Amino acid sequence: MKRQGEFPVTFQPFDKRVHVLAGTRLQEAAMAADLVLDSPCGGEGTCGKCRLVISQGATPPTDEERRQLTEEELHAGCRLACQATVGGPMSVLVPETSLVNRPHQILVHSESAVEADGAPLICKRYIELPSPDRGDDLPDLARLQRCLGPLHADLSLIRELPRCLRDANFQGTAVLDDDRLIDFEPGNTERDSYGVAIDLGTTTLVAALLDLATGRQVRITSRLNPQTRFGDDVLTRILMARTNSEGLQQLQRVVAEAMDAMIGELCDATGIARQQVYHVTLAGNTTMQQLFCGIDPGALGEVPFVPAVQQGLAFPAAEGGLQIHPRGRVHVLPIIGAFVGGDIVGGILATGLADCTIPTLLIDIGTNGEIVLLADGKLTATSTAAGPAFEGARIAQGMRASRGAIEKVVVDRSLHIHVIGHVPPLGLCGSALIDTTAELLRHGIVSPQGRLLTRDELPADVLPDLARRIELRDRQVAFVLADGETVAGGKKVALTQRDLREVQLASGAIRAGIELLLKRQGLKPKDLDRVLLAGGFGNYIRCGNAQRMGLLPPGIEHQRIRYQGNTSLAGAQLVGLSRRYRKACDELAARTEHVDLSLEPDFATAFADAMIFPEP
Amino acid sequence: MKRQGEFPVTFQPFDKRVHVLAGTRLQEAAMAADLVLDSPCGGEGTCGKCRLVISQGATPPTDEERRQLTEEELHAGCRLACQATVGGPMSVLVPETSLVNRPHQILVHSESAVEADGAPLICKRYIELPSPDRGDDLPDLARLQRCLGPLHADLSLIRELPRCLRDANFQGTAVLDDDRLIDFEPGNTERDSYGVAIDLGTTTLVAALLDLATGRQVRITSRLNPQTRFGDDVLTRILMARTNSEGLQQLQRVVAEAMDAMIGELCDATGIARQQVYHVTLAGNTTMQQLFCGIDPGALGEVPFVPAVQQGLAFPAAEGGLQIHPRGRVHVLPIIGAFVGGDIVGGILATGLADCTIPTLLIDIGTNGEIVLLADGKLTATSTAAGPAFEGARIAQGMRASRGAIEKVVVDRSLHIHVIGHVPPLGLCGSALIDTTAELLRHGIVSPQGRLLTRDELPADVLPDLARRIELRDRQVAFVLADGETVAGGKKVALTQRDLREVQLASGAIRAGIELLLKRQGLKPKDLDRVLLAGGFGNYIRCGNAQRMGLLPPGIEHQRIRYQGNTSLAGAQLVGLSRRYRKACDELAARTEHVDLSLEPDFATAFADAMIFPEP
Repeated sequence: MKRQGEFPVTFQPFDKRVHVLAGTRLQEAAMAADLVLDSPCGGEGTCGKCRLVISQGATPPTDEERRQLTEEELHAGCRLACQATVGGPMSVLVPETSLVNRPHQILVHSESAVEADGAPLICKRYIELPSPDRGDDLPDLARLQRCLGPLHADLSLIRELPRCLRDANFQGTAVLDDDRLIDFEPGNTERDSYGVAIDLGTTTLVAALLDLATGRQVRITSRLNPQTRFGDDVLTRILMARTNSEGLQQLQRVVAEAMDAMIGELCDATGIARQQVYHVTLAGNTTMQQLFCGIDPGALGEVPFVPAVQQGLAFPAAEGGLQIHPRGRVHVLPIIGAFVGGDIVGGILATGLADCTIPTLLIDIGTNGEIVLLADGKLTATSTAAGPAFEGARIAQGMRASRGAIEKVVVDRSLHIHVIGHVPPLGLCGSALIDTTAELLRHGIVSPQGRLLTRDELPADVLPDLARRIELRDRQVAFVLADGETVAGGKKVALTQRDLREVQLASGAIRAGIELLLKRQGLKPKDLDRVLLAGGFGNYIRCGNAQRMGLLPPGIEHQRIRYQGNTSLAGAQLVGLSRRYRKACDELAARTEHVDLSLEPDFATAFADAMIFPEP
Repeated sequence: MKRQGEFPVTFQPFDKRVHVLAGTRLQEAAMAADLVLDSPCGGEGTCGKCRLVISQGATPPTDEERRQLTEEELHAGCRLACQATVGGPMSVLVPETSLVNRPHQILVHSESAVEADGAPLICKRYIELPSPDRGDDLPDLARLQRCLGPLHADLSLIRELPRCLRDANFQGTAVLDDDRLIDFEPGNTERDSYGVAIDLGTTTLVAALLDLATGRQVRITSRLNPQTRFGDDVLTRILMARTNSEGLQQLQRVVAEAMDAMIGELCDATGIARQQVYHVTLAGNTTMQQLFCGIDPGALGEVPFVPAVQQGLAFPAAEGGLQIHPRGRVHVLPIIGAFVGGDIVGGILATGLADCTIPTLLIDIGTNGEIVLLADGKLTATSTAAGPAFEGARIAQGMRASRGAIEKVVVDRSLHIHVIGHVPPLGLCGSALIDTTAELLRHGIVSPQGRLLTRDELPADVLPDLARRIELRDRQVAFVLADGETVAGGKKVALTQRDLREVQLASGAIRAGIELLLKRQGLKPKDLDRVLLAGGFGNYIRCGNAQRMGLLPPGIEHQRIRYQGNTSLAGAQLVGLSRRYRKACDELAARTEHVDLSLEPDFATAFADAMIFPEP
């Protein structure tokens, strides 16, 4: 629908057209066309990830665009979506690298060491009550209590109860959330009882529909967290909530809308009514949880980093913007600290970590690296500011594990790459970063200090296929992973010296965290019985390479390292499927000691040590 | 503001003008002018209590008006407000008898045999918390818990908590509703803690502002229940809620608005902010409580008369339409049965009835007569369908105890009357009904069967002043109470034979209830240690007259009959002032046996016996 002062903008290759007001940023116009563009810098024009090619109606470039784009690129119509505005009818080409809502690879698989016990949060019971008569004129709620035992009900149900009971002729199914009666449904609906468990990640959302009657996962779906459009990392979003009076509401709304859409998608695909979904259980990092709950996150963004609440929260789903049963609730998992959230509590629960008898380590590598150690029955947890390098940010050609990403690098006599989706490579994701770094170390192309050698400095016996890949790019040494193939965008995919420094920092932070947690308990890596890897990223790591580059401690046999999948989702599912796990989570969160690495006297030394790659 | 199709209507003697659409009923036009007209029949045109005199713009009378009004009255412009509509500019005279919101007499006095214990529902505590630092990074709520012990908080507070605590520099007053934190106020506000207690009557509302810090009643106000405009009795209102899809909402809204206005009035008069009122405690009969809570009252209006819930309810005040502290709650007292409500539970609590050691009777005479007996530590309660005769309804010249009502009748050598407000009499209220009946019995003018004798049948020694007051009116015998004075409206005030029958029915119902409750416990009236009279009406009864006519059992000395005042309000106040009474009320309600008189085999006989007035 075109209106006064609006211009048509067409996005190719999707052939999507929207009409927007003059002056609208292309990023917003793209959103109106349901295209979410990558924006790690939060639209500041400093990351250069949201580039578009304007084939008609380009406006003059801003200073930021001049800084981020070459003269050639600008001339070819290349612009940044967060900078360029609409000044007339436009036709825009969206490179696949700029999009975040293209087909992506999100870890939805989750395995749990712990079994649900068949006593879900919601209990349904079909009952046939005697109709009241003059000799039996008990009040309606008391009549239910006589049959079901002590229970209470919200006013909103009591308001309807007289009608509900009489319409059902006093025969129907009581729906209980613990000792709270939330509905009385006509007929026997005991088998129609559902919940949704959600892993609320900084980057991705995964939602699973649970059949509470059977304890089974019925269906799963995932999408990117739409808050990424406001910035990739939690601090950018905290800043947005603090500085913009409506920022918090906006962040809350977009993520709630996405979650609600996922619930709708799960219901539509299975023919289940939203009314039959009685709760949502949710695990995420502390900031994501506070943002979804609409809790002022300001104190999470500044020293001393204080969360609002540790305990698990429960509140009406409608208050969180989720449409399920009108008296359905959201249960948010408790947290351990500002940077060790409900996703980690869910992980401790799902992996059964607390019940292990021999020292065990749980590592969740995402934007932060969270580490939990169980030793002598004691749980200690910390988080390391690993940064988003392993998720593709701050890496020149880094990207998330989506189509076009090199995700695996193997060297035998020459170098081989595997690209997600079997398409020409666009960049490289975290697991390829680790593979590449490890291979470069193995072949002596990177020094223990992290220096990428020039061709002149290479060892004499280096494989020719590796040697020829060393180049100079923008006055720094780079290692080319892909050039022979038709590389999308015409640019070779390479790892630069600066990228290697980022990898060194990220890996060092996690490794230092592991070392310090072990040291506090008087342990060494070899004392560990098992290392559990969790999170969307951990599952794609090749252990040998992670150990070679020092991300994981050496001296642990591969069979003692286990991939646990999405333990945040698994934890949320368990809480939905077993009432007692809700309480167990609060206990786990309370008994886990939160270690602030920056307060550990040995941290600086440990970090510096961990930055050095292991000698062969 | 006049608009198209509207006509001005002026109400005299108030000189209030409104503009309403053609076709609007005068009753609604009056409401728009803030004048609430009496309407016991619910606007059916059958009670004739809403008459007005139209001096300009009268429309032709309807059939109902022809039935209710004489030809002369019609000719003089007399009409019924519920029937006559606006057809052009009108000038209307409102007789004082037709108004319900004129100055009225509502019992606000309440005395309580029970003391509050200084532990109100709301507890405020000033605390100075250490600010978080890196060595003490407890979450905000946990920081409060460390100081205050276990507590929880609603999401709406947690959302604000980080900002609240930091704005107050971690020094402020925690507001606790039991173990629920509802606010953290900057500075020390321990002394600013208020509650409102409300007696929600079918006819009247009384609200008291309580200072929770001192346990004192600060101020009191009262007004008529605006639901009376839809009908005087509970059944009319239940019918309205059942038959009209928006009836329940409308009934809920008008009473909530009135209560909210009373809260505003109490706050304005005392300079206290609504934000500092933390709860409303409320007692009323079962139907009034369900209507205020918005609970479908349908089952209360048909056999077997089933309430929705017995327990006390607590819900956010905002859900009930009351503006107090945003997380303040309404606490509604529990009930005993469909016709023995929270007002009676409040009465049992406030009179200390349950703790009496000798048989004691509590009687609350209002529209129904509720009776509670304590004997051998056992509480039994019943209600009698006394009907609204003692409140003026169904009595030809009956009226509420407001200005112009004859409220006291005394005979020495001649008859004397006392009129509320010292104005010419307009009608008679309940206490005068009892006085008159008793005096007529004493002087042999009414037979024990309730027949009002004609002049010819009078005993020879009857006082001349009484004899001359016997008249024939509309072919029935009537006893004139006022004629010599300038009677408002020109009509004598009299009690007719038909009125006497209504008195007989009402009194007999209550008396039969008393007899049956006593009989079930094997007691006789003389076994009673005390009789406690409660309710707005009970306090104005003269005991000797009530005993003479048989309303109260004979043989109980006057000093054993005690006026307890508005025990419903007193009970609501106690619940607001003492946390433990909230629980005590639930226990009292649960342990009181509810007796359905109509199921008692002896009821018909007892009722017939009680209809006979006692012999001298």
